[in-house]
Amino acid sequence: MNIVEKYGGTSVGTIEQIQDIALHAKHMKEQGHNLVIVASAMGKTTNKLIELAHSVTNNPNKRELDSLLSTGEQQTITLLAIAMNSIGVDAISLTGYQAGFLTSKHHSRALIKDIDTTTIQSHLDQGKVVVVAGFQGATEYGDITTLGRGGSDTTAVAIAAKLGYQCHIFTDVDGVYTIDPRLYTRAKKLKSISYEEMMQMACLGAGVLETRSVELASKYNVPLFLGKALETDLEKGTWIMHKELEDMPITGLSVKDDYAIMRFMHLPNDGVYLGKLFKMISDLNINLDTISQQLDDEGLANFTLYCSEEQSNQIMEHASKEYPVHQMLGYIKLSLVGLGISTHSGIASKVLNILSENGIKYYMITSSEISISLTIEKKDKVKAVQALGKAFDL
Amino acid sequence: MNIVEKYGGTSVGTIEQIQDIALHAKHMKEQGHNLVIVASAMGKTTNKLIELAHSVTNNPNKRELDSLLSTGEQQTITLLAIAMNSIGVDAISLTGYQAGFLTSKHHSRALIKDIDTTTIQSHLDQGKVVVVAGFQGATEYGDITTLGRGGSDTTAVAIAAKLGYQCHIFTDVDGVYTIDPRLYTRAKKLKSISYEEMMQMACLGAGVLETRSVELASKYNVPLFLGKALETDLEKGTWIMHKELEDMPITGLSVKDDYAIMRFMHLPNDGVYLGKLFKMISDLNINLDTISQQLDDEGLANFTLYCSEEQSNQIMEHASKEYPVHQMLGYIKLSLVGLGISTHSGIASKVLNILSENGIKYYMITSSEISISLTIEKKDKVKAVQALGKAFDL
Repeated sequence: MNIVEKYGGTSVGTIEQIQDIALHAKHMKEQGHNLVIVASAMGKTTNKLIELAHSVTNNPNKRELDSLLSTGEQQTITLLAIAMNSIGVDAISLTGYQAGFLTSKHHSRALIKDIDTTTIQSHLDQGKVVVVAGFQGATEYGDITTLGRGGSDTTAVAIAAKLGYQCHIFTDVDGVYTIDPRLYTRAKKLKSISYEEMMQMACLGAGVLETRSVELASKYNVPLFLGKALETDLEKGTWIMHKELEDMPITGLSVKDDYAIMRFMHLPNDGVYLGKLFKMISDLNINLDTISQQLDDEGLANFTLYCSEEQSNQIMEHASKEYPVHQMLGYIKLSLVGLGISTHSGIASKVLNILSENGIKYYMITSSEISISLTIEKKDKVKAVQALGKAFDL
Repeated sequence: MNIVEKYGGTSVGTIEQIQDIALHAKHMKEQGHNLVIVASAMGKTTNKLIELAHSVTNNPNKRELDSLLSTGEQQTITLLAIAMNSIGVDAISLTGYQAGFLTSKHHSRALIKDIDTTTIQSHLDQGKVVVVAGFQGATEYGDITTLGRGGSDTTAVAIAAKLGYQCHIFTDVDGVYTIDPRLYTRAKKLKSISYEEMMQMACLGAGVLETRSVELASKYNVPLFLGKALETDLEKGTWIMHKELEDMPITGLSVKDDYAIMRFMHLPNDGVYLGKLFKMISDLNINLDTISQQLDDEGLANFTLYCSEEQSNQIMEHASKEYPVHQMLGYIKLSLVGLGISTHSGIASKVLNILSENGIKYYMITSSEISISLTIEKKDKVKAVQALGKAFDL
């Protein structure tokens, strides 16, 4: 088989783990597989480098920060290649730049424009394991960039797409569950899930894979496997792939913790005034989850914004002097995901009935083709997860 | 002025030092200088990375080790550029590769083949401070290489040579002294010294600058300044430059500690047998300092080798089983350096007289055009330094 394997920070946190991956690579080569390995920075290295930059200034130059952060993955890949070579596995490390990752100039959140896979391919042709630094690339001028959140997953999927390889994402969980097993012990591990459902789960806080990499896999039809690091039994994880509509209307339930509701009350309904408010929010780099607006009897605008607690704190810091805003904390967002939602009628009403029966208040309901999300109080989290998990057989 | 400044590991060991260098750069730019800064890895970073690689295997792949080590300087230069930008100094970091350093393929001791200074020059033309990673480059295939010992000094001098800039090497000592001031408190700081004398001092253990960078400076006529980090008064350090013969026959005295004498006794005078011995020594990557050979009455060869204690231990480990070898420890090598030595007669005899008067035994004397070296016992070190320092007014 032709495989791109990706190891996240917790899977390469120690020298022992790096040596274990080298042994695994040896085993894979002995079985005749072609292997590309994508790795993140070891453990908390990236956070430590960010702290170091912030000890110089609160607002480090983004080009320089990217080049600083890129050293984290470079250290992992060279150590992996050293470990492999030391046990007789012919391996070579490539930084994002060396691997041919051409990106846009948006430092800290660059987009992959193309990958020139000549170098990767030539080393694969020589039978080498190619170890590529995740999360990074370079502009056409050779400036080092990073891909932002979940970047290493994107690196792996992009290489797999370009080479026509499978992509195995190894992490510290052993697959995708219908519900986070820490919340609902009877949650089931999914043998497979569609790209679309996985993207919704990712968007809505399942936290195993970033949307961006799933989207890319879907676009280029890359078979994506998610499993526990060094698990070679591909029956044990979850495959993410193109799927037809299934009987089970709800595939999973995901929870986004630390949710906040922000109420802006009695604002003049004036485009310039409101425009300024929303520009301030977008300048904070905040993508609001949901905005609802009502005009009151006097023609004044009331806005309710839903976002993470952290983002709501940022908004409070910048907006509370100028705008009449009220912050409400202690909420979570709970989402049911499934290809069946749009075609099975009555799911929304079933959800609301269950919540009512259990005395759970809900504050905002939004839905898409394949998901329904509800904002509820944090204290009701366990009760809601148990009730919905049972009702939809998750 | 057009200046390349180089800061070693001890000068960039902390965030405070990095911020101080940024302030200094601001000051230099305000005075209208064009400035390139070359930096080493912070403090003991390089050693820590070597340890990390050695925790994987005793014999890490050299290509990978070079790429691993190069992250050390990359971290320093990005932090320096972040610090400069944060106080309004337009600055950009460049890794060896980005700066156009094309090297040979000899990993861990690559030679600079050329520098394509297009990128450096274009940023200088835009008024930026260009911060370049010392010690590193890349092959024509984009593989990252390191330049080996003293590599950052070489980086700085090479850029200065190519751009026609001055080169200021900043370190934790404030200049070149006639004798190490820790040995001889009355030692004088030299305002200037010739390239040739400095090379001899470097070779013979003065430990302030590697020979290689001085040689390069000499070849390309780069004015070289050596001083304490952040010292802006260029009267306070030492200039290394082309000089005419001077009155003072001896410019300096340097000491190489922990010297060993190795005696191979009564070896058959047989080319194959002796060839094997010297091949073993060269395989250990040891450049012997001095070898002397005598044939005894029976036609057997006696060799005396002079080298560092560490190297002598390596030789003992590999040779003592096969060869009759006797290790003598507890010596030092003391060298007098000066352009005048070759033209002033009687210096050697003056030196030997002084040693005899002070009851100091010497074991080996070698001389070059501009130096005389003697091996003496460690216990005589202070006495010899004081006596010679006084006699030659150092």
